[in-house]
Amino acid sequence: MSDISEIRLARAYLLTVAEPPAPAVSALIAKCGPIDAAHRVRNGEVPDAVAKETAARSRREITEKDLAHAKEAGTRLIIPEDDEWPRWPLLSLRVADGRGVRGMTGPIALWGRGPARLDEILDRSVTVVGSRAATGYGEHIAAEWAYALARSGVTVLSGAAYGIDGAAHRGALAAGGPSAAVLGCGLGAGYPAGHHTLLRRIAESGVVLSEYPDTTPPARHRFLVRNRLLAALSAGSVVVEADLRSGARNTAGTAAALGKAVMAVPGPITSRTSSGCHEMLRSGTARLVTTADDVLEDVGRLGIDLAVPAAKPSRDTDRLSGDALRVYDALPPRAGRSVDWIAAEAGVPTTKARAVLCALELDGLSQRCDAGWRRGTGRGRRDTG
Amino acid sequence: MSDISEIRLARAYLLTVAEPPAPAVSALIAKCGPIDAAHRVRNGEVPDAVAKETAARSRREITEKDLAHAKEAGTRLIIPEDDEWPRWPLLSLRVADGRGVRGMTGPIALWGRGPARLDEILDRSVTVVGSRAATGYGEHIAAEWAYALARSGVTVLSGAAYGIDGAAHRGALAAGGPSAAVLGCGLGAGYPAGHHTLLRRIAESGVVLSEYPDTTPPARHRFLVRNRLLAALSAGSVVVEADLRSGARNTAGTAAALGKAVMAVPGPITSRTSSGCHEMLRSGTARLVTTADDVLEDVGRLGIDLAVPAAKPSRDTDRLSGDALRVYDALPPRAGRSVDWIAAEAGVPTTKARAVLCALELDGLSQRCDAGWRRGTGRGRRDTG
Repeated sequence: MSDISEIRLARAYLLTVAEPPAPAVSALIAKCGPIDAAHRVRNGEVPDAVAKETAARSRREITEKDLAHAKEAGTRLIIPEDDEWPRWPLLSLRVADGRGVRGMTGPIALWGRGPARLDEILDRSVTVVGSRAATGYGEHIAAEWAYALARSGVTVLSGAAYGIDGAAHRGALAAGGPSAAVLGCGLGAGYPAGHHTLLRRIAESGVVLSEYPDTTPPARHRFLVRNRLLAALSAGSVVVEADLRSGARNTAGTAAALGKAVMAVPGPITSRTSSGCHEMLRSGTARLVTTADDVLEDVGRLGIDLAVPAAKPSRDTDRLSGDALRVYDALPPRAGRSVDWIAAEAGVPTTKARAVLCALELDGLSQRCDAGWRRGTGRGRRDTG
Repeated sequence: MSDISEIRLARAYLLTVAEPPAPAVSALIAKCGPIDAAHRVRNGEVPDAVAKETAARSRREITEKDLAHAKEAGTRLIIPEDDEWPRWPLLSLRVADGRGVRGMTGPIALWGRGPARLDEILDRSVTVVGSRAATGYGEHIAAEWAYALARSGVTVLSGAAYGIDGAAHRGALAAGGPSAAVLGCGLGAGYPAGHHTLLRRIAESGVVLSEYPDTTPPARHRFLVRNRLLAALSAGSVVVEADLRSGARNTAGTAAALGKAVMAVPGPITSRTSSGCHEMLRSGTARLVTTADDVLEDVGRLGIDLAVPAAKPSRDTDRLSGDALRVYDALPPRAGRSVDWIAAEAGVPTTKARAVLCALELDGLSQRCDAGWRRGTGRGRRDTG
């Protein structure tokens, strides 16, 4: 058995016996390497903390044959020793862990299904998450933005749940882009049941990831643990819709703790599914985004993806200010008035008013008539040459 | 003629001949007092800057009789020398003016209609503004919040325009509270025509204000000039709905420049009338508010009006964390399982799992059965004693 195969098997074993996150096991690996760590755990020659993390399952085993079977079924174990390991995004976890943020232990390895190389697919990626019980409004936004992000070459990462997650994956796939999913259960757990086809489609061009052995069932604590990966693996997280207790807020909070961009989409204040977004915006946890371009800007690197500021509709009179605006506003729409009357109405000296009226005339904003001056139509002589 | 009557007449004259804001005239008043300033303007013995501000109308006059007539018709001229002058709110304009912010000259005087004393009605006040072309969503919020604010003893200040402004005034009046309006035209201009009754109702218990002589027609520049008063006279401004070029954004920007609280209500990103609010929230000009309590909190003084954080709906299992949550999640809902099975599933040592299961039982979250343990109904023994 080659070195890398032995390491992979050791990590597969450790992933099998320790429920993530397993800080003590990870520390043991860091100290004596995965092979030695696996050996010690098997023989019970470990510190109490490691024993606690592995006691319940240390008798479980995984063999070279299991890995080969998994590979035949399309599932590989991606380990930190692999070239494709997403070192750079996961560095944020290590930094947070080093700063003492709880639960930020990185994964021992990741089960993956799909053709995409992890480092490549995650290089430019955004996490899009939100409520399972989403509204049409939220699903529309998630799908549209995911489509636009995928078109811009950005990978949409999400949790494959019903509602916002599903809409985001679908939008990315509709744009022909790959998408990436991280699950809170094993890749073979068949969860959520209604997303069987969606998960298969994601795995055709992108990748579906999990820290959990194949048939591990979903559980609430696993979703919370999974959320740290959704937060860490991309450049930033967008919460499209979330009520006050949505797991998406947990992902966003983790992303913030990791120093990533955190964004939230506003909605009607009368909609419960936007209340979590509003709370994050009000508390300053998230930045408000109203377009996919806003998202690109917030996670954009080196200013390449700067959003164009929303254009104001323009009017002929937009350029006017001060005295010119006053005089223009004083102009009667139909029947003309004298320069003196207009000057008094506008509150500017008559000489000034006369000069302004002539200038406005060039832009068609004022018009001479028998009785003096009136408002013009806006089609200026400047336009017609 | 008493001193104060003479001063009032002098200010009435200066307000008649100078279109606000009139920084040069205001400076002249500050230098030599209103009576002398009026005298000099009448005789043309003024610096160029003052002449420019008054040239077009310096021949207009206003007499003691005009003021008496106005008073009979219910309109009084409120001057800085009056006890009710809102010195404290207007100080913000003077500070901004001193810092060189353009257009922040305070009013020379204010025409007012209504029984309320200005200092009293504005003591606890919030400006509520927004689009003329509001949606049902925006008008609903404006009216509901104004109602709630008025109930809390806060005066709702607005511009009496169609849309959000009108809804805000109506909400405050519906709560039996007084409301205050500042117009961009004279009090007798009859604008907006459809709000004749609303303005009359505001003037019955609150006050309608204007810097402009009685019949001065509305004009765009006057709305912009008026907006500084809407921003200055209250503790903070809420923009309920605004598109990207709404005047309400101008009021909010001025309020920000004056150091007042600026708030905006989010809405669907698909609604153009919320786009101005979202822009202000994204740029950090405004703070997001989702309830009238949020508004009270943001403008609240001395922590009296602190909003209660939005309550999360609670579940029996909310208190669970760490191992307890893992064990609870591992519990099968119906058919029981052994402690060993549950421990392996949860990834905690068997001894720990057993202790947790017993603790959960006290809260009714776990249940013993023939086959071992299963999930409980949540009605704990602790509840029933």
